[in-house]
Amino acid sequence: MPSGTPDGHHVVVVGAGFGGLETVRRLAGAPVRITMVDRRNHHLFQPLLYQVATASLAPSEIAWPIRHLLRRRPEVTTLLASVERVDKERRHVILDDGSALAYDTLVLATGAGHAYFGHDDWEPFAPGLKTLEDATSIRRRILVAFEKAERETDPEKRAALLTFVIIGAGPTGVELAGTIAELAHVTLTKEFRNIDTRQTRVVLIEAGPRILPAFAEDLSIYAQRALEKLGVEVELGRPVTACTSKGVMYGGKTLPASTIIWAAGVQASPAAQWIGAPADRAGRVTVEPDLTAPGHPEIFIIGDTASVAAPDGTPVPGIAPAAKQQGKYVAATIRRRLEGKHAAAPFRYYHQGSLATIGKRLAVIDFGWIKLRGALAWWIWGLAHIYFLIGVRNRLSVALSWLWIYTRNQRNSRLITQGDAAKSLTKT
Amino acid sequence: MPSGTPDGHHVVVVGAGFGGLETVRRLAGAPVRITMVDRRNHHLFQPLLYQVATASLAPSEIAWPIRHLLRRRPEVTTLLASVERVDKERRHVILDDGSALAYDTLVLATGAGHAYFGHDDWEPFAPGLKTLEDATSIRRRILVAFEKAERETDPEKRAALLTFVIIGAGPTGVELAGTIAELAHVTLTKEFRNIDTRQTRVVLIEAGPRILPAFAEDLSIYAQRALEKLGVEVELGRPVTACTSKGVMYGGKTLPASTIIWAAGVQASPAAQWIGAPADRAGRVTVEPDLTAPGHPEIFIIGDTASVAAPDGTPVPGIAPAAKQQGKYVAATIRRRLEGKHAAAPFRYYHQGSLATIGKRLAVIDFGWIKLRGALAWWIWGLAHIYFLIGVRNRLSVALSWLWIYTRNQRNSRLITQGDAAKSLTKT
Repeated sequence: MPSGTPDGHHVVVVGAGFGGLETVRRLAGAPVRITMVDRRNHHLFQPLLYQVATASLAPSEIAWPIRHLLRRRPEVTTLLASVERVDKERRHVILDDGSALAYDTLVLATGAGHAYFGHDDWEPFAPGLKTLEDATSIRRRILVAFEKAERETDPEKRAALLTFVIIGAGPTGVELAGTIAELAHVTLTKEFRNIDTRQTRVVLIEAGPRILPAFAEDLSIYAQRALEKLGVEVELGRPVTACTSKGVMYGGKTLPASTIIWAAGVQASPAAQWIGAPADRAGRVTVEPDLTAPGHPEIFIIGDTASVAAPDGTPVPGIAPAAKQQGKYVAATIRRRLEGKHAAAPFRYYHQGSLATIGKRLAVIDFGWIKLRGALAWWIWGLAHIYFLIGVRNRLSVALSWLWIYTRNQRNSRLITQGDAAKSLTKT
Repeated sequence: MPSGTPDGHHVVVVGAGFGGLETVRRLAGAPVRITMVDRRNHHLFQPLLYQVATASLAPSEIAWPIRHLLRRRPEVTTLLASVERVDKERRHVILDDGSALAYDTLVLATGAGHAYFGHDDWEPFAPGLKTLEDATSIRRRILVAFEKAERETDPEKRAALLTFVIIGAGPTGVELAGTIAELAHVTLTKEFRNIDTRQTRVVLIEAGPRILPAFAEDLSIYAQRALEKLGVEVELGRPVTACTSKGVMYGGKTLPASTIIWAAGVQASPAAQWIGAPADRAGRVTVEPDLTAPGHPEIFIIGDTASVAAPDGTPVPGIAPAAKQQGKYVAATIRRRLEGKHAAAPFRYYHQGSLATIGKRLAVIDFGWIKLRGALAWWIWGLAHIYFLIGVRNRLSVALSWLWIYTRNQRNSRLITQGDAAKSLTKT
């Protein structure tokens, strides 16, 4: 593939998530210029985002400035910018200020947001968890609910304030439910005078027949029992039919609840629209076996924005290892092309395993060839996540935070920020 | 003083800053019920707030949930609430939801905000630094300015984006200027491709004849030279006459600058209005020698909200040690009264010293009897501040953050949050 720009082959990567960053990393030393475009200034370690939402970790413990991560790569330019559209014919990415960024190869790794399955009006009442702002906003809702309950004299209103509903029982929903239960039943017990936080109800609602559907069935059953021991009520096989400011409707009944969190579905970023490619119901582009857009071998689409099948025919899951494998594959393909080699073999996803924690001491791990559950699984989960964090500083910091949670039940980031905290009690 | 409520003497403390918290701490074991009212859920270690504004520390490293700090005191109730007014005759504090909180003794420790000396229209362009939100908002402005500059092609606009103005050269202004200079001239140098962050101008403007006016004159001169070595331009004797979206006017000239920070003046909280007491120009209540409101011995006013003279006739400064000494005095006075003892001696402020840092290696300390400057002063400053932080967890965390800044010039909290970062580039 000859270079279209005078100063060498230019790769534009949109999105500095796991997939985009891995692409740039694996292109080190290749004869290319790279521009990394992201509308945020930070890479986010999404697998631990639920811990920011539950006041266990601080935002900066799981986020890194993108340009700091790429500072030792002089051939990489980082741009804080939004993409408006892609001009496929001219090979231009059009940015928010109207400027055009010419590319030879384009990598779209723009991730996914929440999907409400045609009920976008639920979003204000049941926010999802994808960004740091989502996490601090959910943290604020959870902490404010306890504060309101402490001042509420009406028993019914107080009960609704102390009811937390999580919709969707994948790993994020399970992890949120377990952690909120521990927050209420352990961390906060000594701090309020008018309420007993142990009365808090945490309800996990799942439309399907079991929690953690990506795991083996016995692990689902184990995880459900472990959640119930933490005080979580698990409601299976009941799709939610309404979310309002009063609570949630499911299975024909109404549950008054002032805090609802959405962990049920994702919607891919608008990359399919940018390039006019056909998309599946979740907005993902159905890519070629080499992860390129149909008819456009110079455009790669990876991560949560791409729909691709694993060797067993199931869809590649929207998790960090999958995005990283795709980033590695794309970088290798770009190198092969620049070296004039024949086309690479199709992308082949290797599933390393599924992990989910239940509170601060238990986890389930499904490696396929071996299944783990309980305390050992939790330690493996914890060590793996610390290993995958970037930099010694953040590893030490997260390890410290977890040590305090583990030994003293202290959660270090219980801050209600964004405006006057007391006003949020009377206004909403 | 007999109790006015059936279940014991009730002390209401408004404000969980250094003064309010110290009052509650020193009342441990006294025969009183206590209600702590604050409109935020956290106590803030304000002396290090400038480090949050400059991305050196995370918000949760210098803030603690108030009810967590008071969890082992069952006689203390913490309320997240705003005070609307005080009914002195009935001895009621009226809260934001209209409810009345009866007190026997009231302690107002509500701190101070920014003062623009009749120019409140400057605030949007020159925000001040008092709360965590102020700090993350200033952090956002500083980081976005560099991001905008990286994408700006017009040299004049780019120069304005790379000009940072700090108004007011007390400790906060000096610390902000030194840290922003280090951020631009050291931390960020390798991360941008289109701009050279070493071209950044940091201008510290002071209306008075020298920086750090509370310190001995030779320390002011030393600090100014040290700042200038870090690349800060110090402009003395020139009051600012205008702040706009374009920049700042002072001494008859206009300096185009897109980031202006206000560190020039404070305005006390409206406690004087609540109790209808006469206030000085900065809104502080001129209290009796025992820190009570004129004519109301059951109302104490302490910290930045009170105007009281030190033994040498100068005003007691608005710093943490002064507020803590007042909190200790108030607690002792309440105890004496409950024991039926005669009135306490007037409050007597003891000035322990003034401290300010210049960047990450130098500081000035004026203990009165001894003056220190340079690296040794910085180490004393650092150890003192870590000592005064609450809890082992935060001490370790801040020490870690400083170690990384000191040895590797890495600042760990360079997050642009609050909405879509890229949008803020094109919108503002």
